[in-house]
Amino acid sequence: MQEALGLARMGWGLTSPNPMVGAVVVRDGVIIGRGYHFKAGEAHAEVNAFADVARHGFDAKGATLYVTLEPCCTTGRTPPCTDAILASGVKRVVIGSSDPNPHHAGRGIELLRAAGIEVTVGVEQSACSELNRPFFKWIATGKPFVILKMAMTLDGKIATASGESKWITGPEARRRVQALRRLSDAIMVGGETVRQDRPQLTVREPDSWPRQPLRIIASRSMDDEEVAFFFPDGNAERVELETNEEWHSLMVRLGARNITCLLIEGGGELAAAAIDAGVVDTVEFHIAPKLLGGRDSRPVLGGNNPESMEFARKLHNVKVTHYGEDIAISGDLEE
Amino acid sequence: MQEALGLARMGWGLTSPNPMVGAVVVRDGVIIGRGYHFKAGEAHAEVNAFADVARHGFDAKGATLYVTLEPCCTTGRTPPCTDAILASGVKRVVIGSSDPNPHHAGRGIELLRAAGIEVTVGVEQSACSELNRPFFKWIATGKPFVILKMAMTLDGKIATASGESKWITGPEARRRVQALRRLSDAIMVGGETVRQDRPQLTVREPDSWPRQPLRIIASRSMDDEEVAFFFPDGNAERVELETNEEWHSLMVRLGARNITCLLIEGGGELAAAAIDAGVVDTVEFHIAPKLLGGRDSRPVLGGNNPESMEFARKLHNVKVTHYGEDIAISGDLEE
Repeated sequence: MQEALGLARMGWGLTSPNPMVGAVVVRDGVIIGRGYHFKAGEAHAEVNAFADVARHGFDAKGATLYVTLEPCCTTGRTPPCTDAILASGVKRVVIGSSDPNPHHAGRGIELLRAAGIEVTVGVEQSACSELNRPFFKWIATGKPFVILKMAMTLDGKIATASGESKWITGPEARRRVQALRRLSDAIMVGGETVRQDRPQLTVREPDSWPRQPLRIIASRSMDDEEVAFFFPDGNAERVELETNEEWHSLMVRLGARNITCLLIEGGGELAAAAIDAGVVDTVEFHIAPKLLGGRDSRPVLGGNNPESMEFARKLHNVKVTHYGEDIAISGDLEE
Repeated sequence: MQEALGLARMGWGLTSPNPMVGAVVVRDGVIIGRGYHFKAGEAHAEVNAFADVARHGFDAKGATLYVTLEPCCTTGRTPPCTDAILASGVKRVVIGSSDPNPHHAGRGIELLRAAGIEVTVGVEQSACSELNRPFFKWIATGKPFVILKMAMTLDGKIATASGESKWITGPEARRRVQALRRLSDAIMVGGETVRQDRPQLTVREPDSWPRQPLRIIASRSMDDEEVAFFFPDGNAERVELETNEEWHSLMVRLGARNITCLLIEGGGELAAAAIDAGVVDTVEFHIAPKLLGGRDSRPVLGGNNPESMEFARKLHNVKVTHYGEDIAISGDLEE
C-alpha cells in the first residue's frame, strides 16, 4: 500500500476534481504492475495498473490488487473500475480508504465481494484519506477544502508597519507554497496584499505546469479594472466578503465550479475573516526564525478583537515540519 | 562523560554563582565514585566523587576521573581541586570543557600534566559548555546571561486587547518556566505585566525550593510603594530603563551582585526593548497551538517599528521542543 500511496502522489495537483489514486498488482510477493490516476477524464489507477501488467507480459489472474481508494462502480467519464477488476481475474483486492461519496460508499466493495473476490478495507486508511482531504470534503459537502497558509516571523509579524514583507521565509518554504498552489484549484488573497506585494499567484515550479489556479481577490475598495491591471492574463475574479453568509455562499459557488481546494494566502485581515467565518479547514503557518518587533508591524491575524483568551481557536492534529531554516506549524480547525 | 553530565545537572539552579559540575571516577570500565557540585561554598564535584569512592571502600589510585569542567587550581571558598586530584592518585583526567574564566583557563590542565597525569580535554565539549552558558558568560563578561521567555498563541499574541492572558500555554510549558526560574538569579517583567497578571514570579516547583530569584520590575509609572504592594515579601526592585546605556549599566550592576542569569518574562514592550538594547542572549518562545486573532490583541513583541524586514533579528542555533501540546522555538541572538 505504501507503493500505491507513492504512485497516488504522482498525481498531486493534476487530478482535480478527481482524487489522487494509486494501484499496484502483486503476485507471489512481486509487483507485476503499477498505475495511478493522471488526470480527470483519463483512465483510473486500477485500469492503468492492469495495462502495466499486460505491458510487461504478465497476467493479473489470481493476483492481488492494492488500491488507495475504493474502486468506482459507476460510469462517469470512464467505465466503472469494478468491471476492469472483475475482467482482470484478480482474486483479492486490498483497499486503503472507502469511497467518501455518500451515494457510492461501500457499493464497489459489495459488488466485488458478491463476485467472489476477497476484499480487505482500511489498510493505511489514515494516510490514504489524508492525501485526498480536499476531494473528500468537496464530494461530501459540495464546498472546497480551505487551506490557510501564512508566512510570519517568530513574533507573529507578516510585514512592517508600512506593509513591506519581502522576504520572510526561505527558498524551501517557498517551494512548499508552490506545492500547495499546485494542489489548489483557486488561491485567494486580500486586495491590500495585491497592492502591497504584487504577487503573481501562479505555479512557477515546474516552469510549464499545465494548470494555473483561479485567483480570487477579496476586496471592497478594488474594482474589476484594478484587478485586471494586476492580473492581465484574466485568470482572476474579485469578491466582496462582508458577512459569514457571503463567505459560505462563495464556498458553495466555488464548489459548484469544481473548485475542490482553496488556498488562502493572506493578508492578516482576510485570514482572520476567513477563520471567523468558519470556512478554514486547516492552517499552515510558516515561521521564519527571526524577530521583527514593532508595535504597528502587521500581525499574521488581525480581525475583531476577542474579549477573552477563551475565544482562541484550538488547532487539532498539530504537526511541526521543517523547511530549510523555517518551521511550519500546521493544524486543523473545527467548524 | 554522559554520566558526569547527568550528575552536573543535579545541581540545576543550586550552584549559582558557581557552575554546575559533575564527576565520575572509573576503574577497569566500572564507575567507582560519583559526585557533583551541590551549592556554592560547598565541596566541588571532584572532591565529592573522591569521597564517594572512599565511601564505597574503593581506592581512586590508578583510576580515571571524568569531569565536565576543567578543575580549579586556585583557592576560593574551598581548596583547589587540582590538589585533591593529585592526592587521589588517579592516572588520567578526562575533561568536558575548559575553564571559561580568562584568568584561569588551561592552568588546571597544565598543572595536572606537569604532575604526570594524562589529561584529555573536549570530550562532549558542547554539551558541557551548553549546560553552563549563564556561568560562562558571567565569568567572562561580568554580565548576566539573559534569557527572554515568552508565551504566545500561534498568531503571536500574548493577551487580548484588554490585557487578559490566562492561560495561553499548558501545564508542561509552565513546568518548563519553573525550571527556567530555578536556573535564574533574577526575573524581570514590565510594570504593566505586574498590574495585569499579578504574577508571583516565584519558584513553586518543588514546594520548598530553597532559593527564590530576585524580582526586577521595569516600570516608569510604578513607584516603590506599588512594587511593595504587589510583592510584600520585599524580594523585588524597581528599575527604569529608557536608554540602551541604562540597560547595559543595569547588566553590569546585576553581574556585580552575582546575578549570573536573568530571565525576562514579558510583556511585549519590555521584551522588544531588551532585544533592541542588545542584552538578550537567547530567546525561548512557547507557542500554544491556537489562534486568537484581533488587530489590537497584544503582540509578543512591541517596540519601535522597524522600517524594513531587513531589520528582523535572525536567531541562531534554533531548536524546536515540545512541551505537551505546546511547541517551543528557541534560539540565540548575536550582540
